[in-house]
Amino acid sequence: MTNNQLDQLRHQLDDVNIRLLDMINQRGQLVKQIGDLKKGQGMKAFDPVREREMLDHIIEHHKGPFEYATIEHLFKEIFKAAKELQEDDHRKTLLV
Amino acid sequence: MTNNQLDQLRHQLDDVNIRLLDMINQRGQLVKQIGDLKKGQGMKAFDPVREREMLDHIIEHHKGPFEYATIEHLFKEIFKAAKELQEDDHRKTLLV
Repeated sequence: MTNNQLDQLRHQLDDVNIRLLDMINQRGQLVKQIGDLKKGQGMKAFDPVREREMLDHIIEHHKGPFEYATIEHLFKEIFKAAKELQEDDHRKTLLV
Repeated sequence: MTNNQLDQLRHQLDDVNIRLLDMINQRGQLVKQIGDLKKGQGMKAFDPVREREMLDHIIEHHKGPFEYATIEHLFKEIFKAAKELQEDDHRKTLLV
């Protein structure tokens, strides 16, 4: 019975992992679109003020169980990954 | 018109951030439940084999735009945060 419960929770965790993955990738696509739009307008892709605004918005909506510092750390890693995605695109453009 | 487009994409990004936040917290709750269940059975909370299985499952479902290595890095950070959550709980139990 208890092992059944553990299996069930693990299945739920696997589902949440895949939904997280989809959302991270969806976020990556959006950041690429924003980067392209900004490049077209001669604007810099990275904007530290906007990054701080996004973090503030996230922190406002946070209810736990994680600490604020953990959430901020995770999102900074997610932001960094998206920045690298834009830089990769830029490097590829230079190589063509 | 283009600034409207930028605003719209930024709103979408804010929405995705909040959905990501909710899912990270939902994942945290699930990991806590699993940890409690395992503790009740005298099992160790952290299982490196299960962590590798979760990563393999995630990687199987990954379609981009991020590189595999980036996704693996982000999920390892998410796993680490959940482990810290369980350790915090354990420390609090010891202090009571």
